[in-house]
Amino acid sequence: MKIGLLGMGTIGSGVYEILEKRGDIEVQRVLDLRKIAGLGDRLTARFEDILEDGSIDTVVELMGGLEPAHEYVVRSMRAGKNVVTANKLMVSRHFDEILRTSQSNDVAFRLSACVGGGIPYIHNLLRARRVDFILWVGGIVNGTTNLILDTMQSSGEGFQEALREAQRMGYAEADPSSDIDGVDARSKLTIAMNLAFDGVADTNAVLTEGIRNLTGQDIRCFKKLGFACRFLSSARRLEGGAATAYVEPTLVRPDAPEAAVRKNDNMISFEGAYAGVQHFIGQGAGKLPTACAVVGDLIDLDRRRHLSPFTTNGAPIAIDNAQVGHRYYVRTAARLGIPAEKIDDRAYLTEPVSVARMHAHAEELRVSDPGAFFAGMRDE
Amino acid sequence: MKIGLLGMGTIGSGVYEILEKRGDIEVQRVLDLRKIAGLGDRLTARFEDILEDGSIDTVVELMGGLEPAHEYVVRSMRAGKNVVTANKLMVSRHFDEILRTSQSNDVAFRLSACVGGGIPYIHNLLRARRVDFILWVGGIVNGTTNLILDTMQSSGEGFQEALREAQRMGYAEADPSSDIDGVDARSKLTIAMNLAFDGVADTNAVLTEGIRNLTGQDIRCFKKLGFACRFLSSARRLEGGAATAYVEPTLVRPDAPEAAVRKNDNMISFEGAYAGVQHFIGQGAGKLPTACAVVGDLIDLDRRRHLSPFTTNGAPIAIDNAQVGHRYYVRTAARLGIPAEKIDDRAYLTEPVSVARMHAHAEELRVSDPGAFFAGMRDE
Repeated sequence: MKIGLLGMGTIGSGVYEILEKRGDIEVQRVLDLRKIAGLGDRLTARFEDILEDGSIDTVVELMGGLEPAHEYVVRSMRAGKNVVTANKLMVSRHFDEILRTSQSNDVAFRLSACVGGGIPYIHNLLRARRVDFILWVGGIVNGTTNLILDTMQSSGEGFQEALREAQRMGYAEADPSSDIDGVDARSKLTIAMNLAFDGVADTNAVLTEGIRNLTGQDIRCFKKLGFACRFLSSARRLEGGAATAYVEPTLVRPDAPEAAVRKNDNMISFEGAYAGVQHFIGQGAGKLPTACAVVGDLIDLDRRRHLSPFTTNGAPIAIDNAQVGHRYYVRTAARLGIPAEKIDDRAYLTEPVSVARMHAHAEELRVSDPGAFFAGMRDE
Repeated sequence: MKIGLLGMGTIGSGVYEILEKRGDIEVQRVLDLRKIAGLGDRLTARFEDILEDGSIDTVVELMGGLEPAHEYVVRSMRAGKNVVTANKLMVSRHFDEILRTSQSNDVAFRLSACVGGGIPYIHNLLRARRVDFILWVGGIVNGTTNLILDTMQSSGEGFQEALREAQRMGYAEADPSSDIDGVDARSKLTIAMNLAFDGVADTNAVLTEGIRNLTGQDIRCFKKLGFACRFLSSARRLEGGAATAYVEPTLVRPDAPEAAVRKNDNMISFEGAYAGVQHFIGQGAGKLPTACAVVGDLIDLDRRRHLSPFTTNGAPIAIDNAQVGHRYYVRTAARLGIPAEKIDDRAYLTEPVSVARMHAHAEELRVSDPGAFFAGMRDE
């Protein structure tokens, strides 16, 4: 098996290292605009050198970003090449097109590294749905924000200090927006629900609240309430093909399994009608863990053990968050328009309210109070 | 695909129910000595009716026990039939013979349901070891004992009450010895380490301490120490092909992931050199979860996506528990022969001592104090 590797960044170099040690899967060409020592003639800056190389049967897309990653994936499939990718943002936006293109060109598409990095979540979801009926997907899907929350709660540090520490440790990027605003989590949840519920959801319709506005006062309130804060994603099937789907900071009891997820670990879960709830805990990012997921996909293709993510006609999944609700912690200087009990200076616990209403009301609050923060409360 | 089902007990009837709804895998014959309504001519009390039926390509062994399960599995393989089993006790005893027989007869052998019931642990271990180097396997592999421990710690009930409650709920058997004495956990750990470390360990050499002697006084001591008790299994590679391997009640900090495992859930884990530690949490037993694992194996065989558990020459794995140690909680009326601090009436915290020495010393203590109890302490 010969592959073309698009992008020799952190994950790409991890995949390259592992494959060079193995010997069964050959890195024929590497696309990267930078000079990279040791690759010799295999390095190219022209995608066409990979596209037109008939000896390459599989393209591994590890460039990240929307374009040209999306274009290269589609063109590779049309040229009859299998595709393996770790690009959750791109896959969540172009899910239907990519799956249809892989099917119409009779090539394989694998995306294990898109959700959970080194955690074998997608593979298990694909296996489980062959037998079981998946009712729910969710969990802690972003390690950077879990590290920030864990640091703030254990050390009493403020948000900016905890973020800077995560950046120093290499767990947060220079521009942390995608993590702390929930874009990364939303992409992963969208992919998981598409696979689990056999359809295509609009990732922009997933209600998403990040942790950018979290303060030390909020953390003190959570402790006073006896709760821990985790950044949770959740998507549940409703009757008739629709689903709830949202990402928000969530207060959980300290003995909840989510509260035991420390540092930058992930805990990704699904619930089957037969097998019940399953949680998968591990490193959701990082060079070698994520590279393991990519290489696992390549071995599956090499040994023809492909589990296709495509089972559906691509029916749209309508997202309806009016059907789900709970209490919320809200901290705002603006006038709260939801019945609530005041628990601290400008901090409230609301009555149970739908997820749709709370996220919509938060937008209203931010007109006068851009720093408003809210978190769902799981108090069962 | 046509199967012969050996045993129509809890798991067998779960498998039957799921397969009847699917239609892609046909239950051709069922072996059971009891009369079972609805099976008609398919029911037989003679194993030979399955062995000699050339239309049956796969035998599903769900009888449990050592014999005749072991004999039937070997004879099925020799007759050219694939085997899927959930029988951890039998597989842990006859691992090498079964794997060699499957290889020499060129038939598939799948054992997903042997460890973790509905939790896809073995499948993921087999997938991970294709890429990664597995350093450690372990965790909470027995749901009945976790339920007993969780009940005792949350309600203050004694051991006998908690056991009877587990029996009433259907989670503990009338004779609970295999669970509470750790035989079930030891079988699972043996299978996991054989697969992870590519060899064959003697299951009788796995040092095993159960929870039969646990009392309310012990639970009160754990609380005073600020620890929770979980029933943990652990096997770690040593240099040169040997491994540590033991099963014992273990005190963990209340914020450890194991402490968050509630009721009869399992948390089964492995550590890879690349991917780090991964935990798999879910229902480790029960009719439909375990049946899901069996049916998943059958679908893999039907679609020729078999992951072979056989990669090794069956080299023996020597077990050496002198190479690992920690502090222990010990409650005994006999004279403790290990340096220790007294923390309660007849209850002690020892200095760090090897697992081998503690398990051997407990045998000595029990000559005069058959009710002595000990638990490892993980205080990092």
